[in-house]
Amino acid sequence: MKIKYNLIHEDKKTQARYGTLKTNYGEYETPMFMPVGTQATVKTLSPEEVKATGAGVILANTYHLWLRPGEDIVAKAGGLHKFMNYDGPILTDSGGFQVFSLAKPKDISEEGVMFKSHIDGTKLMLTPEKSIAIQNKLDSDIAMSFDECPPASASHEYLKNSVERTVRWAKRGLDVHQNPKQSLFGIVQGGPYADLRKYSAIETVKLDFDGYSIGGVANDDEAKEDMYNAIEYSIPYLPKDKPRYLMGVGEPIDIIEGVIRGIDMFDCVIPTRIARHGNAFTRHGRMNIKNAKYKEDFTPIEEDCDCYACKHYTKAYIRHLINVDETFGARLLSIHNIRFLIRLTEQLRIAIKEDRILEYREEFIRSYYEKDQ
Amino acid sequence: MKIKYNLIHEDKKTQARYGTLKTNYGEYETPMFMPVGTQATVKTLSPEEVKATGAGVILANTYHLWLRPGEDIVAKAGGLHKFMNYDGPILTDSGGFQVFSLAKPKDISEEGVMFKSHIDGTKLMLTPEKSIAIQNKLDSDIAMSFDECPPASASHEYLKNSVERTVRWAKRGLDVHQNPKQSLFGIVQGGPYADLRKYSAIETVKLDFDGYSIGGVANDDEAKEDMYNAIEYSIPYLPKDKPRYLMGVGEPIDIIEGVIRGIDMFDCVIPTRIARHGNAFTRHGRMNIKNAKYKEDFTPIEEDCDCYACKHYTKAYIRHLINVDETFGARLLSIHNIRFLIRLTEQLRIAIKEDRILEYREEFIRSYYEKDQ
Repeated sequence: MKIKYNLIHEDKKTQARYGTLKTNYGEYETPMFMPVGTQATVKTLSPEEVKATGAGVILANTYHLWLRPGEDIVAKAGGLHKFMNYDGPILTDSGGFQVFSLAKPKDISEEGVMFKSHIDGTKLMLTPEKSIAIQNKLDSDIAMSFDECPPASASHEYLKNSVERTVRWAKRGLDVHQNPKQSLFGIVQGGPYADLRKYSAIETVKLDFDGYSIGGVANDDEAKEDMYNAIEYSIPYLPKDKPRYLMGVGEPIDIIEGVIRGIDMFDCVIPTRIARHGNAFTRHGRMNIKNAKYKEDFTPIEEDCDCYACKHYTKAYIRHLINVDETFGARLLSIHNIRFLIRLTEQLRIAIKEDRILEYREEFIRSYYEKDQ
Repeated sequence: MKIKYNLIHEDKKTQARYGTLKTNYGEYETPMFMPVGTQATVKTLSPEEVKATGAGVILANTYHLWLRPGEDIVAKAGGLHKFMNYDGPILTDSGGFQVFSLAKPKDISEEGVMFKSHIDGTKLMLTPEKSIAIQNKLDSDIAMSFDECPPASASHEYLKNSVERTVRWAKRGLDVHQNPKQSLFGIVQGGPYADLRKYSAIETVKLDFDGYSIGGVANDDEAKEDMYNAIEYSIPYLPKDKPRYLMGVGEPIDIIEGVIRGIDMFDCVIPTRIARHGNAFTRHGRMNIKNAKYKEDFTPIEEDCDCYACKHYTKAYIRHLINVDETFGARLLSIHNIRFLIRLTEQLRIAIKEDRILEYREEFIRSYYEKDQ
């Protein structure tokens, strides 16, 4: 079946909303955070560990799986769920973002994007039709339209042409999309420009997708206002009865700001990526476990955290594992970091239901950014 | 308490024996295979996963833990069990093997070994007393005597002096060993020479340890006869009421040959090491999962294996994970490989009890080394 979004409660003072998402693999509450399993595995974790964090939907990357092992092998395995042993909902991206960020040089035309594989330099072509065909074979529950992801520095003129083409690409993808069990999302682009975001949202919504995502938001500290503006420029033109997904965003504060602006779904590699570098999310900011002050700290990363890592292991032990390059360290931090973001969304959902999302933001900021860290 | 070995059944035609080992953390059957957690973690695995393979005793390396995080930190954490969250028995080696293999250059004297840390070149001294002191702080259940591990190429003359010194070192370690909860094993050395093995065994047993290990067996395919001979030269002089441990041996055939010659305990990094290179033990020999023939093989590594990896994942998926450098691949293969060796010991125990250990060896060799692999 297609996914079904059910709007349950809207915050009175903000755009924040609480709802549920019915999928082929159960119903999940929103706002939600979706861990990323780029290559058909959430880095360092088993599917059981991913589920134990409270995760529902997870992501997989079409670009990576297209190149290795190839969508035909995944299809022969019985689809992505069987291949990777995950019996929860899976969302695949379109491959667009990776083609534009990983694969160079590239040649963009109306037909699609010609580029060289980042693995072996093979010349490949990704088109809206090809992206949908791959995602169909991967058999994800939610597929994404193929979009152009221009650099943050692109001009208004460039972005205008790009957004118009992305709408045409969205239409082409929709036309070839056949899988009645797989939902398809449209993507709103337009960089930091209000007029382009509006155009992109209106034209994409006209095509009638199962959900909408906001893409092309710069994910760095310098451009947070641009990100928040891009959401605000897009949301008014998205239908209330469809889920809204902010792609590639997972900084705690950005999740909160996104939720306040009406976003339902988030994904990001950040919890597993920073874990591999020895970093943990805490309510008091990011913790670098390699710091010497944790050498003899025999308390968990967070005393009140209910994750497997915090229930059984100390900072001193995890610090040791990271220092001596043992993957179990990255695994424990990944579990904690994913659980941290999922707990954050759990708390946000409660805050929305209690109409105190703005107060929650204040409390969070006070704790997360306090100076004596 | 000290460990207690209980001899239950001796094979009629060989030296093989079935028994149990009572430890601070429960009673376990022998012959047993002990997975290695060099740096206070069995590479890529959680303690729960280690236990799920059927493992009882695990190893940790004194040399590595001495350097990082340092035995004092482990002691402050409440000992190794608490530090790494393993509530099963732990055996620590003496650090001798690593000092002789990893740390160079080194200067061997009657007092001990002066060497440079393989991590940062710091000049360090390991002595029998220091080794025992570190192991006391680590609070393992079984500690090992500090021994010299000469190269396989050492002359009879060199080995004679070395063996005599190792006996003196064993005595010094015993004299300073205070921990009533920690057992201490002596080590029989002597290279490939019957007279030296006999001397080493007799003199070490005179000191009265809680168990005896056979060390200095070359662990390569070229020298299997030397290894088996070294065991045969040593075993007749070891008491029947104490466990016998063959250090660093984990090739399936060597475990079988060791058991037939009277060994009760084995340890080796091989199951986790070959896993990281994409190799799996099977009853039909070693399997390199990267082989193209497994690309579309949607069956488990071994159909009749009861491990987590074989119950949930296919060769095609594990091959993909290894090919794209995802640690979950090494983890699945590590689980399988450890379980393989532990199942092997389970089958060996049954074979001993049924007095058909020689038949078991024949069956195993026929299957493991058959040509059409």
